[in-house]
Amino acid sequence: MANYLAMSSEELVEEQQKLRVEYQTYKNMGLNLNMDRGKPCTEQLDLSKEMLKMDNYIGEDGFDARNYGVLEGMPEARRFFAELLNADMEEVIVGGNSSLQLMYYLIDLGWRQGFVDSPRPWRHYNALKFLCPVPGYDRHFRITEYFGFQMINIPMTENGPDMDMVEALVQKDESIKGMWCVPVYSNPDGYCYSAETVRRLARMKTAAPDFKIIWDNAYVVHHLTDEQIEIPALLYECQKAGNPERPLTFCSTSKITYPGAGVAALAASERNIRYILKNMMPMIISFDKMNQLRHVQYLKNKEGVLAHMRKHRAILEPKFNLVKQTFAEQLSPCGDIAHWTDPKGGYFISLYLMEGCAKRTVQLCKDAGVTLTGAGAAYPYGLDPKDSHLRIAPTYPSLQELETASQLLTLCARLATIEVLLKNR
Amino acid sequence: MANYLAMSSEELVEEQQKLRVEYQTYKNMGLNLNMDRGKPCTEQLDLSKEMLKMDNYIGEDGFDARNYGVLEGMPEARRFFAELLNADMEEVIVGGNSSLQLMYYLIDLGWRQGFVDSPRPWRHYNALKFLCPVPGYDRHFRITEYFGFQMINIPMTENGPDMDMVEALVQKDESIKGMWCVPVYSNPDGYCYSAETVRRLARMKTAAPDFKIIWDNAYVVHHLTDEQIEIPALLYECQKAGNPERPLTFCSTSKITYPGAGVAALAASERNIRYILKNMMPMIISFDKMNQLRHVQYLKNKEGVLAHMRKHRAILEPKFNLVKQTFAEQLSPCGDIAHWTDPKGGYFISLYLMEGCAKRTVQLCKDAGVTLTGAGAAYPYGLDPKDSHLRIAPTYPSLQELETASQLLTLCARLATIEVLLKNR
Repeated sequence: MANYLAMSSEELVEEQQKLRVEYQTYKNMGLNLNMDRGKPCTEQLDLSKEMLKMDNYIGEDGFDARNYGVLEGMPEARRFFAELLNADMEEVIVGGNSSLQLMYYLIDLGWRQGFVDSPRPWRHYNALKFLCPVPGYDRHFRITEYFGFQMINIPMTENGPDMDMVEALVQKDESIKGMWCVPVYSNPDGYCYSAETVRRLARMKTAAPDFKIIWDNAYVVHHLTDEQIEIPALLYECQKAGNPERPLTFCSTSKITYPGAGVAALAASERNIRYILKNMMPMIISFDKMNQLRHVQYLKNKEGVLAHMRKHRAILEPKFNLVKQTFAEQLSPCGDIAHWTDPKGGYFISLYLMEGCAKRTVQLCKDAGVTLTGAGAAYPYGLDPKDSHLRIAPTYPSLQELETASQLLTLCARLATIEVLLKNR
Repeated sequence: MANYLAMSSEELVEEQQKLRVEYQTYKNMGLNLNMDRGKPCTEQLDLSKEMLKMDNYIGEDGFDARNYGVLEGMPEARRFFAELLNADMEEVIVGGNSSLQLMYYLIDLGWRQGFVDSPRPWRHYNALKFLCPVPGYDRHFRITEYFGFQMINIPMTENGPDMDMVEALVQKDESIKGMWCVPVYSNPDGYCYSAETVRRLARMKTAAPDFKIIWDNAYVVHHLTDEQIEIPALLYECQKAGNPERPLTFCSTSKITYPGAGVAALAASERNIRYILKNMMPMIISFDKMNQLRHVQYLKNKEGVLAHMRKHRAILEPKFNLVKQTFAEQLSPCGDIAHWTDPKGGYFISLYLMEGCAKRTVQLCKDAGVTLTGAGAAYPYGLDPKDSHLRIAPTYPSLQELETASQLLTLCARLATIEVLLKNR
């Protein structure tokens, strides 16, 4: 291996032929591996099995969680999530198994009917726009696409979205109704918003009086190092800045206990919460409060959650290290053909290849039996303008599978890079 | 006691004074009883505690229910609900803990976007109407009220809604987009739709090409006698009549296992199901499949459900009998001042008083510490045109509480009747 960028065409072709032989070896292995989604592995799911033995379904106030009622969630569950979300318990609604469904519900509510600070429902505007830090979470973008928003890419930096760009856009365009954010260990880069970014988001002037920040704190306790990064509470910062109705903040236990059967929660200003509950009333009598109690009894509080998350870290850290080490060994020697993020938490690593290499790499992997997240998936409409980004999800495969998959991935990336380099000669 | 209708004014006043003394005795008891909602009692909730010990979360096809995925529900859960809903498993989506939320979702979907057979989204019509058999379920009516439908009362009969009226309305008015139905042991009368009613609903010509029947089979297995009434499957009848996309049918285990933490399901034509799943995709990754498996492992199949429901019946039948007996003892001797339904299943009894007596009866009960369902609650907008209907929910209180509450209720009803009779003299 040597610096691809310094190679002559002949040398590149020689390298290509060598790699093709290697690639054929992988193909002959008949692999069937999946690094597509950020799913916990079986070992992680097993961590929470004691929770299922909880069997007290009477709440602290004597209410029987098995029966109808208490739409806002059991009080101990509201307090539990208030601590995770840096909010007061009156600012919290504890929902069902999906924070995504809560976010969808709120986008739907704004669109159909508006919020407490809306001059009119969003659907009554001729144009609707939403800011999307990129790369980001495909399922966020899909919601706003579904509701017909024009999505505007905002480049991510290590400190969060490009705030100069955000501020410039929102202060002049009333049709920009909100912004998606994964503020801690962002999906997929693993970046954390700086205190400065949080404060600028809270303070910025927005042309839309009902601008909403969807603050998806999906990875708020999902640390992979001893650092345990915490950032300022957006709810509090917005309140201080005089924009209390701006933030809608979320988290869930999907990647703490069970992705299919966790508990999701929403925190916002008390005024927002009252308005949301009033609108939820015709929709549902109550969420699954038995599951809420199960979770609170088992995890207890934030300290209990952090202790539980250390067990996840013990499983995940070696996987992240393996991937980064393979990238370093297999890609760094080839020169400046790729860089990747070094997340201190969360579920993903971003791998950035040379322009035009991402789709081809995914295809080559697929042809050899390894499914990656589709190239472009982390961008609105699935369109990565540079076709350079890959979202790497190291959590689900076993270490051994991950080793094979990472080796193949770097091999495919190098093949794709050589093709692009040769084509551009 | 004698026939109130044959009494002179003096006799009525004398009776009134006697009853007022009795009423004061109740007031002095400082009661605090609730017959407001159709909630299962604690004894019923305890019936399902073995279910919580189920601990296999790997589905029959090897899929780990603890992880993300399988939006349509676990295959064994689809098959389970297909049997309850008289459908094929491909016609079923198994959801979360609330069938009401599924119904809300579908009204929202029709309103926002329309169905497979909609010329345009419902919101694009100048007028939107929905048929509401009355008395009916307040939470149904609240959904269509929330979405701005004009609701049209359809009188209920022992065989279901007045079909002459339904047919006449739907065939001439394109803005009538659907109809709420609780076909078996209707809420609150406990009536069952006849085979003829089901077939007329399936066959009738509707001006709206996308007319939808919301078929809430909430009490499909909630028998209180040996008769176990079954009615023709609407899905099948609609298919046979060439209107396969008309029905959206629902049931849940809310009143089989846990009201707060059961499993809800939807059955409709495969074409509808595909369309609904496509639209649900941006909203949620998957419902709580662990709870789905827990239920299926415990209840097994319809036969298992029916065996479980016999335990509910053993608790509920004496409660229904007590109420009906009290009505017979305390109201029948007073002449034709009231009649009530004699449900063979479900959760409610309808008590019909003389015109103008319902609200007053509820108020009198409340003043003496017994909360009933608000008068008018079973009618759209909470307006009972005759102010005569009371929904009686005998399930939640203990037998002893129910005895006191029923006695007080009949006393209040007689007081209210006398007031009306005297006023009309």
